Amino acid sequence: MSAVRELAMRAKQASRRLAVLSTEEKNALLSAMAEELTVRKKEILEANRKDVEAGKTAGLTGALLDRLELTEKRFAEMVEGVRQVARLPDPVGEVVRKWRRPNGLEMEKIRVPIGLIGIIYESRPNVTVDSAVLCLKTGNAVLLRGGREARHSNRALAQALGEAARKRKLPAEVVALVEDESREAIPEMCRLDGVLDLLIPRGGHGLIATVLEHARVPVIKHFHGVCHVFVHRAADPAMAEAIVVNAKCQRPATCNAAETLLVDRDGAEKILPRLVKALRARGVRLFGDEAAAKASGEKLSPPANWETEYLDLTMAIRVVDGLDGALEHLARHGSHHSDAIVTEDRATAERFLREADSAAVYWNASTRFTDGGEFGFGAEIGISTDKIHARGPMGLEELTSYKYVVTGRGQLRE
Amino acid sequence: MSAVRELAMRAKQASRRLAVLSTEEKNALLSAMAEELTVRKKEILEANRKDVEAGKTAGLTGALLDRLELTEKRFAEMVEGVRQVARLPDPVGEVVRKWRRPNGLEMEKIRVPIGLIGIIYESRPNVTVDSAVLCLKTGNAVLLRGGREARHSNRALAQALGEAARKRKLPAEVVALVEDESREAIPEMCRLDGVLDLLIPRGGHGLIATVLEHARVPVIKHFHGVCHVFVHRAADPAMAEAIVVNAKCQRPATCNAAETLLVDRDGAEKILPRLVKALRARGVRLFGDEAAAKASGEKLSPPANWETEYLDLTMAIRVVDGLDGALEHLARHGSHHSDAIVTEDRATAERFLREADSAAVYWNASTRFTDGGEFGFGAEIGISTDKIHARGPMGLEELTSYKYVVTGRGQLRE
Repeated sequence: MSAVRELAMRAKQASRRLAVLSTEEKNALLSAMAEELTVRKKEILEANRKDVEAGKTAGLTGALLDRLELTEKRFAEMVEGVRQVARLPDPVGEVVRKWRRPNGLEMEKIRVPIGLIGIIYESRPNVTVDSAVLCLKTGNAVLLRGGREARHSNRALAQALGEAARKRKLPAEVVALVEDESREAIPEMCRLDGVLDLLIPRGGHGLIATVLEHARVPVIKHFHGVCHVFVHRAADPAMAEAIVVNAKCQRPATCNAAETLLVDRDGAEKILPRLVKALRARGVRLFGDEAAAKASGEKLSPPANWETEYLDLTMAIRVVDGLDGALEHLARHGSHHSDAIVTEDRATAERFLREADSAAVYWNASTRFTDGGEFGFGAEIGISTDKIHARGPMGLEELTSYKYVVTGRGQLRE
Repeated sequence: MSAVRELAMRAKQASRRLAVLSTEEKNALLSAMAEELTVRKKEILEANRKDVEAGKTAGLTGALLDRLELTEKRFAEMVEGVRQVARLPDPVGEVVRKWRRPNGLEMEKIRVPIGLIGIIYESRPNVTVDSAVLCLKTGNAVLLRGGREARHSNRALAQALGEAARKRKLPAEVVALVEDESREAIPEMCRLDGVLDLLIPRGGHGLIATVLEHARVPVIKHFHGVCHVFVHRAADPAMAEAIVVNAKCQRPATCNAAETLLVDRDGAEKILPRLVKALRARGVRLFGDEAAAKASGEKLSPPANWETEYLDLTMAIRVVDGLDGALEHLARHGSHHSDAIVTEDRATAERFLREADSAAVYWNASTRFTDGGEFGFGAEIGISTDKIHARGPMGLEELTSYKYVVTGRGQLRE
């Protein structure tokens, strides 16, 4: 048996212990973890410095080094995040529905933990702690596989969490870190059917392709967002400008930032010059189709395609034939993540909200709101780009399954 | 592009048309389908006779031939089933949750169709109609792959459904039948990522293994049930006997029939002789461990393993050390489908209901109740043996996803 499978089986065994803990016991575990992280702060930051040094030597870009670094402030926020999750309501045990059958059977549908959840993520080491505590709060054990550039940080963090579990008389493997850095580790996690109940890959094309290729376990992908703002002919121009600029520029590297601006052919000549000017003023590099160039009176070269997630200050502009053209574009080129319409016309907005097949659809608001915190979920483990089980921001509730509890007095099936 | 992928893409396109239909329009479609089936009854039964004849020639067993045959009565029930689904409430459009954020954003979580659902099933041709109408009722298009022994029946049924769609000005491909009978068709369906939103395989080990091997699309398995009845020391003996007999014998070929009887060591000598006698009187072939043989005073040979789904009048008996022994057995050998405890002791029952990790857990009732109809769902597309998205009986609600609809007045993310 591979080391990964052995570790996963110990974590699965540990998940049975977690599943029957009360909310108070789980919260006490999280508090103990916050405490242990605090106690070990010095050695964790030391481990992190090793990773940052190694990253510099290996020539990581500034952006990657920044993601890797645990500053004092980030460390404090990470620990405070653990305490915040402890304070959130626990969905496990919630009676979703309760009913009685004509034969007298008492039926309850009850939220339960999923079991063992695998998470594959990239550089940021605080994800180790963030995702572990969300899983633990919902009674799940977690099998983590972080980026190799954060290896020392992840090990130090996982050891702190494991030690806190041990102090609470629980197996350290409630948080199991896969330290195998070979290419085989991810395919192996994908093939842990019967052990791993769910796998959540968070990352780019390469990771998602590998997971899709090998997965025999259920997967909820946290993949890219090619998000759109559609400016309808009946849009308020100032609002359209503000929303387009916010959706593109406020934090362009996120999955809910807009990549494509769709403009209604009717009215394009009025609104587009203003939008182009505002975007250019923020340093946005623009692509556009011929009609967009004409309507804006600007030189725009066409984008290579309409499916690219730029993740930077780049935007593609397309002129479409009204709502139908916008919906057709979304169906053909969109990633079904977050899409907005700007219009003062209620009937058009309502059709857009109903017919755009996206995890989050917005009327007169920025796509940047697709986020567990902004939605009021208190925390999120990521944003699902799948439609099964969880869609959009995934909070605690989405880390649970359910069971049916049936109470009888000897009822038999006839 | 393969013929399967081409068909799937047409069905996916058709799913966009279905997704925006009102409940009334979908119900009218189902009524038209019931009507078209009735009109074509003669040719459908004729097609079915061809399948039955071919099955006889090929030497199918009596049980398989019986599953294959569409009698007048079954045909009438199938058509009535379509009308019943039309009368069920439509979950699509339901506002699951509605809230307001401090920044004034109006949030709604709304049930939506999943898109294109693939279903792979075996001999019974009425599954073609049953599963198609459940998908259509929830605004999903369906890609069906039935057993090759039912090829003529399935084609005639799918043609009737498609013709009814056409008469309602919808593409016939809202019900798309994969007629490719080669071994490659199933792996191809599994690899339709980006087109097929969900694949539901209903069948035996071979089918499930093939699907797991190749699936790149989300899968909800409808796999086997190794269900248990645990007779606790505080069980009412008459109730224990009635439940064990019902769970094993009432319809042994179903996934919710019990395969294993667990008996508390404390009291086994009192209750086991009675249980063994009752089961033997119904012709049940029994296996048992040494302790079961001793406690019952009968000759019992040990089962080959504790994981077999017998699907016939066979049962394995094991003596366990109280509730903990029973839970340990379920965790190690169970399939997490449906498991029952018989006891008059509330505290023991409550621990069992909480700690047994099964889709349905029963206290003093037969495992045979795990069924969409018995649960009051009105209809079921099958019983999920997975924990993600849907667990246990899957009704209309489980054939939906959701989206977040956000209404603003120009809100921006800060």
